[in-house]
Amino acid sequence: MKDKPLILITNDDGVDAKGIKELTGCLRDLGEMIVFAPDGPRSGMSGAITSLIPVKYSLIKKETGLTVYSCNGTPVDCVKLALNDILDRKPDLIVSGINHGGNMAICVHYSGTIGAAIEGCILGVPSIGISLTSHDKNADFSECCRLGRKLARRILKEGLPDGTYLNLNVPEIQEVKGIQVCHQTSGRFVNEYMRSENASGEPVYWLTGSFRNSSPLQSGDDVLALDSGYASLVPCKIDVTDYDFMQNLNQLIKD
Amino acid sequence: MKDKPLILITNDDGVDAKGIKELTGCLRDLGEMIVFAPDGPRSGMSGAITSLIPVKYSLIKKETGLTVYSCNGTPVDCVKLALNDILDRKPDLIVSGINHGGNMAICVHYSGTIGAAIEGCILGVPSIGISLTSHDKNADFSECCRLGRKLARRILKEGLPDGTYLNLNVPEIQEVKGIQVCHQTSGRFVNEYMRSENASGEPVYWLTGSFRNSSPLQSGDDVLALDSGYASLVPCKIDVTDYDFMQNLNQLIKD
Repeated sequence: MKDKPLILITNDDGVDAKGIKELTGCLRDLGEMIVFAPDGPRSGMSGAITSLIPVKYSLIKKETGLTVYSCNGTPVDCVKLALNDILDRKPDLIVSGINHGGNMAICVHYSGTIGAAIEGCILGVPSIGISLTSHDKNADFSECCRLGRKLARRILKEGLPDGTYLNLNVPEIQEVKGIQVCHQTSGRFVNEYMRSENASGEPVYWLTGSFRNSSPLQSGDDVLALDSGYASLVPCKIDVTDYDFMQNLNQLIKD
Repeated sequence: MKDKPLILITNDDGVDAKGIKELTGCLRDLGEMIVFAPDGPRSGMSGAITSLIPVKYSLIKKETGLTVYSCNGTPVDCVKLALNDILDRKPDLIVSGINHGGNMAICVHYSGTIGAAIEGCILGVPSIGISLTSHDKNADFSECCRLGRKLARRILKEGLPDGTYLNLNVPEIQEVKGIQVCHQTSGRFVNEYMRSENASGEPVYWLTGSFRNSSPLQSGDDVLALDSGYASLVPCKIDVTDYDFMQNLNQLIKD
């Protein structure tokens, strides 16, 4: 008899966040679930790894079809440690999320949710990052769960190409119109710091800012899909080489 | 009179590392230098940003043509804070490094050195990450400086395409044969943890491991160039969308 699919769940908001609990609940009947997630918030940790101190983990809960671990590391550490030390076979799917807050456009470069999906992909497992465009601790994840579950089922059946992971973002609205396959919107954050003072009167800087797209939004931009009431699904590559520029770069460095 | 080029230097080994000092020294006559770097080691911080606590910085040194700041944040925080709060104009170049340790192949996804270069690129500045394939605190950076300086001069003159940054890795050998434009080698780390115990007898895990390429090295792989005595130069993209897979993904999620 074929084993049930093995699904690894992680996130960057911590093992107690509503998003990861909702995700675990909605995927639970699709396979054997292992939750291995940070012991607290790790938002904005990107692909960070912990090397200067050791990492450790502890078992939180074990019941039929669901085992939950908590880890003191980053989202990437969680994926690495689960695959190196916990799982007796390679998972069939890694889902990271559901993140409290969108990871569209260039947020892929900062997001711990996506960091975990990248790591899963590097380790050869079909991997998805799922985010809801709301930072509310008690956000409504129902549409996000519906679409995330649909996507997870398809990927369990069809797989993904080597070196490609998925970035799903879902708007927090009552009825999402569907999933649109998109590309990453080009842009940057502006006005990124709020200046304040610490108790000693020294200036300190809190990260804030708002996203500004580099050119008017066009069809295919993930940000436009979200603004239009769709979930955006961006396939992303581990290989970030700019192949188109290689020849010109050769000219540029010539003696 | 045209201003001298403004060059921002950062790294992930901290403002006191040999690598950043050697880099600053060898680029110094090319422009006005601002060093804005972490106050200690931030290796493996990838594109991490600090949002749960505030960041702050302090002036370390100011002399003709060179100003040095130290910051409690990540490499990305350093780039963001320098551009948002310190510099009165956009720099002409950002150089991150010289890292103590190579950032070839998939290390782009973990490296704080590269995180800073990505951030510079997002903010619209030609950006380069430079790494030496030695973790030795007292490594010999002379060949790395020679090639890094050559590259920096070219980029100051020619610029880079929007959305593309450079990843230069240099082997620590007496005479590097030159720079080869390469692509990112595909692979992963294996045997990633050394298990140990803390003082309470609990198991803890130290990150370690060795790189294994997914297929035999071929011409154009950055790892092969380094093994052959060349410096590898990989142009990398901010837009990580897998455009080739978009159509198939559309089929895959169809109802």
